Amino acid sequence: MAGDSFGSLFRISTFGESHGPGVGAVLEGCPPGLPITQAEIQHELDRRRPGQSKISTQRQEPDTVEILSGVLNDSTTGTPIALLIRNTDQRSHDYDEMAAIYRPGHADFTYQMKYGIRDVAGGGRSSARTTAASVAAGAIAKKLLAQQWGVQIQAWVKSVGPLQLTTTAEAVDVSQIEQNIVRCPDPALAAQMVALIEQTRKDGDSLGGVVECLVRGVPAGWGEPIFDRLEADLAKAMLAINASKGFEIGSGFAGTSLTGSQHNDPFINDAGIIKTQGNHHGGVLGGISTGMPVIFRVAFKPTATIASVQKSVDLHGNPVEFRGRGRHDPCVLPRAVPIVEAMAALVLADHALRQRVTSALR
Amino acid sequence: MAGDSFGSLFRISTFGESHGPGVGAVLEGCPPGLPITQAEIQHELDRRRPGQSKISTQRQEPDTVEILSGVLNDSTTGTPIALLIRNTDQRSHDYDEMAAIYRPGHADFTYQMKYGIRDVAGGGRSSARTTAASVAAGAIAKKLLAQQWGVQIQAWVKSVGPLQLTTTAEAVDVSQIEQNIVRCPDPALAAQMVALIEQTRKDGDSLGGVVECLVRGVPAGWGEPIFDRLEADLAKAMLAINASKGFEIGSGFAGTSLTGSQHNDPFINDAGIIKTQGNHHGGVLGGISTGMPVIFRVAFKPTATIASVQKSVDLHGNPVEFRGRGRHDPCVLPRAVPIVEAMAALVLADHALRQRVTSALR
Amino acid sequence: MAGDSFGSLFRISTFGESHGPGVGAVLEGCPPGLPITQAEIQHELDRRRPGQSKISTQRQEPDTVEILSGVLNDSTTGTPIALLIRNTDQRSHDYDEMAAIYRPGHADFTYQMKYGIRDVAGGGRSSARTTAASVAAGAIAKKLLAQQWGVQIQAWVKSVGPLQLTTTAEAVDVSQIEQNIVRCPDPALAAQMVALIEQTRKDGDSLGGVVECLVRGVPAGWGEPIFDRLEADLAKAMLAINASKGFEIGSGFAGTSLTGSQHNDPFINDAGIIKTQGNHHGGVLGGISTGMPVIFRVAFKPTATIASVQKSVDLHGNPVEFRGRGRHDPCVLPRAVPIVEAMAALVLADHALRQRVTSALR
Amino acid sequence: MAGDSFGSLFRISTFGESHGPGVGAVLEGCPPGLPITQAEIQHELDRRRPGQSKISTQRQEPDTVEILSGVLNDSTTGTPIALLIRNTDQRSHDYDEMAAIYRPGHADFTYQMKYGIRDVAGGGRSSARTTAASVAAGAIAKKLLAQQWGVQIQAWVKSVGPLQLTTTAEAVDVSQIEQNIVRCPDPALAAQMVALIEQTRKDGDSLGGVVECLVRGVPAGWGEPIFDRLEADLAKAMLAINASKGFEIGSGFAGTSLTGSQHNDPFINDAGIIKTQGNHHGGVLGGISTGMPVIFRVAFKPTATIASVQKSVDLHGNPVEFRGRGRHDPCVLPRAVPIVEAMAALVLADHALRQRVTSALR
Repeated sequence: MAGDSFGSLFRISTFGESHGPGVGAVLEGCPPGLPITQAEIQHELDRRRPGQSKISTQRQEPDTVEILSGVLNDSTTGTPIALLIRNTDQRSHDYDEMAAIYRPGHADFTYQMKYGIRDVAGGGRSSARTTAASVAAGAIAKKLLAQQWGVQIQAWVKSVGPLQLTTTAEAVDVSQIEQNIVRCPDPALAAQMVALIEQTRKDGDSLGGVVECLVRGVPAGWGEPIFDRLEADLAKAMLAINASKGFEIGSGFAGTSLTGSQHNDPFINDAGIIKTQGNHHGGVLGGISTGMPVIFRVAFKPTATIASVQKSVDLHGNPVEFRGRGRHDPCVLPRAVPIVEAMAALVLADHALRQRVTSALR
Repeated sequence: MAGDSFGSLFRISTFGESHGPGVGAVLEGCPPGLPITQAEIQHELDRRRPGQSKISTQRQEPDTVEILSGVLNDSTTGTPIALLIRNTDQRSHDYDEMAAIYRPGHADFTYQMKYGIRDVAGGGRSSARTTAASVAAGAIAKKLLAQQWGVQIQAWVKSVGPLQLTTTAEAVDVSQIEQNIVRCPDPALAAQMVALIEQTRKDGDSLGGVVECLVRGVPAGWGEPIFDRLEADLAKAMLAINASKGFEIGSGFAGTSLTGSQHNDPFINDAGIIKTQGNHHGGVLGGISTGMPVIFRVAFKPTATIASVQKSVDLHGNPVEFRGRGRHDPCVLPRAVPIVEAMAALVLADHALRQRVTSALR
Repeated sequence: MAGDSFGSLFRISTFGESHGPGVGAVLEGCPPGLPITQAEIQHELDRRRPGQSKISTQRQEPDTVEILSGVLNDSTTGTPIALLIRNTDQRSHDYDEMAAIYRPGHADFTYQMKYGIRDVAGGGRSSARTTAASVAAGAIAKKLLAQQWGVQIQAWVKSVGPLQLTTTAEAVDVSQIEQNIVRCPDPALAAQMVALIEQTRKDGDSLGGVVECLVRGVPAGWGEPIFDRLEADLAKAMLAINASKGFEIGSGFAGTSLTGSQHNDPFINDAGIIKTQGNHHGGVLGGISTGMPVIFRVAFKPTATIASVQKSVDLHGNPVEFRGRGRHDPCVLPRAVPIVEAMAALVLADHALRQRVTSALR
Repeated sequence: MAGDSFGSLFRISTFGESHGPGVGAVLEGCPPGLPITQAEIQHELDRRRPGQSKISTQRQEPDTVEILSGVLNDSTTGTPIALLIRNTDQRSHDYDEMAAIYRPGHADFTYQMKYGIRDVAGGGRSSARTTAASVAAGAIAKKLLAQQWGVQIQAWVKSVGPLQLTTTAEAVDVSQIEQNIVRCPDPALAAQMVALIEQTRKDGDSLGGVVECLVRGVPAGWGEPIFDRLEADLAKAMLAINASKGFEIGSGFAGTSLTGSQHNDPFINDAGIIKTQGNHHGGVLGGISTGMPVIFRVAFKPTATIASVQKSVDLHGNPVEFRGRGRHDPCVLPRAVPIVEAMAALVLADHALRQRVTSALR
């Protein structure tokens, strides 16, 4: 069983390679009657697309999405929604030299070991270009969540290399995020991040960082016991994004040094609504949402492709030295923001529908 | 669709509440002909069971497993393996007082919101007792991995509260882990951890920490593109363990402050085998194993139940003060070690079988 | 991926061999709050159990079901319901002689080819004893359907060998079915069937036949486009019953000789409710229920085990002659009736919950 | 969970409406390295496409397939294969009049009840046009089966209305099937069938019939115990084809009037290979293939759209009289032949891969 699909009731199946005809997704389980336009989906793709600013890759791909099915008169019909994003700017020759090299930090070696063949140009299925399909489908999930439950998902760049935002998630001014090209809600810090990214690119190197995500409006009760806990499915979704190396929810790793009396969030009665005082738990207890904001963070490693000379081996195991070619992001964080949001939306839409089933007899 | 099952080809379906007749699992997909005894499964359960040392809960539950199907003459038949662990030490009266309280850090509130009813005694399905089913099934996964691929999975306690092991994963002396009751491979640090846990319990409080896991012997090629990446499934499995709040693989969150030139692990030719120099990647690139050791860490929050007085609200939203009753672990870390191993084994066994399918035509 | 599970939202996972500790099932997805008692489940098992009349096998197995989880105070909790039926009357020695023979019409040969091993006694997993698990889980599905939607499922024996009931399904007097041991609603025909079965057993031979099933109360709208059509899932469920060789819905095979003008059922307005005149379609159009009664038939081959001398080969391919041992039904039809009902209930409960999801936004 | 996908290891997910941009499928799980060309897929589509002969609908749709992913240099890469067939000949105005009528025998009413909306033109998702996606994916399944296991799948028209082929399946001259437009292997009978279909169309009426399918080369061991029996999955696949009303394997319904001594197929040793004498079992015992040819039949009702005047009701429940418009087949049987083959291929390819997993430890 391949792993190109995700979700149970709200389910995305993806396809496509970076340098074939295109990438896309089929979305099953979207209820009928949801208003959705091509432009709404395109908006999210534009946030992810290459070439959008001076700190992202200079590849120019319009990433125009076509809705092949499941939508009639800008409204879903309840049948599968197929989305196609054709590839356009394919400079395969950029990759010719790379065909025989196992690039460090890339999937060249592992795909070769797994399949015995390798779709060299652009990394084939291992390319981050495949995330465009998730972002397109995620746009529909976002719309469903907003329209039916008032759920709002917002991610931002929390750190780039050593530069870290110290504002807590719930205190972030989300209106600032899209005001700068690095998508950090603190304008001053954002400027520093941009400068650092530009300098690092000039140095032929790359940077990693952390994306933080805040979800408001999730009602209590989403998530399923034992394995499909809300945080478990979020963790899977986030580790399924290219270059991610970690996930934490609420207090996360830092919370492990607190004691229980410090960490527990007492329940309180806020004008008839039961909430918690504090949110170390990050909006989930026992795998199920509490109604408090869901807060999580995702770690991204520095981009593997760098312009400096690196050592590695070729397909025959001979040592080689090479420089990265192709046009890559010196730091994936700004473009990772809409991907994190899209993946979160896919997880949450699935659990929203699942809770409808659980509550069927109530 | 409920979330009580996990895995695609090697699939566990769990059942049972902490204070009903018992807990258990049905394991589908285990190939025929694997030698397995009740004692091998019992061994892993004994590592997880309550009452095993002075720093774990004093509940005494033998946790004896019965194999109901799928094994004949100590060998698997290829049909579903049902495992049943009957509950014995059920002091429900310990929980009577708790029935009307939403305990901070527990799933009382979220289960009530989700189901509209709540199986109060022992937390019902939200109890960590349900992990016994995973540990039992995981024992079979471990055996399959060891026998067929020589895979060895070993976890240990890396930190308890502020006390942290600084030895790198690959340098750990795994023979030391089971030599102390806290399951930390550094004897001196282990003694400090035990002392801290005992003191914290006396103080009516609790501790969290980090478990690290090292898996040797995974061949290159396990993991599936896009969503079912090896690290994505590991992340889900780990966040599905009670009280876990974070997961990281390889360099994890710390690696986000490195540059690409520092972080990339060059491929080298080691006597005909292609390996990497360094293991920031943690054994996985592009979602697929490289053949290097798989290394990951899991964050566990401090135990929610503490003996000190806490504030919260009752079912009617009235403020209450209460003390935790029942017999709980002041620190779940030592008992989390076999659970982390079991969940890792379930993920890896599933991907091992999936790779057999992928390689069908080669 | 093994095939021991069935259903998507309302999902049964079965386990157990005929001569191991027991057989059972885990039922995921049953909503919380459904009233159900052990006695209600036991009632259906008693309709299926061996030894219930002179025309069924004389094996005496009480088939007592134990509810291991998911039910508290005779009400479902929404968590997995595990059901265990321990084996008791195991005369393995009846089968010793058979161990080396590939019995005609049995799964001995195919299991050997598939697994390379064979659980000889009682047929292991291929035994019809495994249907007890489906019947137990089906009892819960039946209750859910009746309580929530008023759905009533009733099957009966339509033919035994050459003896066939000519009454149309909707004209059958269902109150007569359980009044005779062959479960045919026509008392006179039932008496002939009993006599034929007894005579055939004396002759050392066996009989097949057809079970018909009528489901009233299914609302319009159940069933999913393309592959999970209601009739497709019913067909799968029925062909998954031991000894079944065919399925037809509505007009079935006989309807293929009609013309469209004869076969089409016109829609009519019956006091504000849209129905059809006639029911050639059998309650399903385009894979989705119309609100008319669902009517289908299942063909069962004659029992493979017979007391007469038969020819075959042994494990080494040598020709052998042998007589069937063990205590088997000369005609499986009467005991197939509750199994057909249970499988239909599992399919319908699943689709009932699925339609709740589809209608989520309406 | 929607029902637009089918299969577990070799899995098709379909999308598309009859009058939207197009229809298509994503195929997951096809192993890497299978040679496949666009022309091979197109060949099967051409056998299914409208307008291919005087007895099929006169709609002209070229049904040209585009491979969007998963194939590089005419060889599969192991990643999802997306197939797109754009719609071209859309005369929606043919259907305007139909928009307000619940046509007898069609899915108009049930889709309206299910979704609350209806994609009128061409029947939307209920149109048989969606089978083009299955045929395209099935072409790849056929190639995989032929290349890896030597499996050959061949279906033909066994009956049209009252005209029935009496030749047994194994005696059919399959070279004759594609020699006539009705796809019946008996030339004389085929001519009668063609004449009957033409006359029936002139009469403003339609016909049903039976397709028979013979699969040679399936090795012993395919099929999974309990629910995913080979015949159960075949039954589901066949009842998932538009207009099908029944399925039977081997002796089927007729076999129910035989006795066990007549029906059992004795095992024999044929030059070292164990086979059966006779094939009442149809190639499957206990849900698992025996190595004998797999033989099954599928019943198709007469086409629901006819040119004669029919009665029905409109959306408001008012009685109406109307004539069928659009260009439809007076008998779907000839075009159903490649669809039956394709669906069988999808089932068999899935089970072929599943058996690879089961045999992993052998």
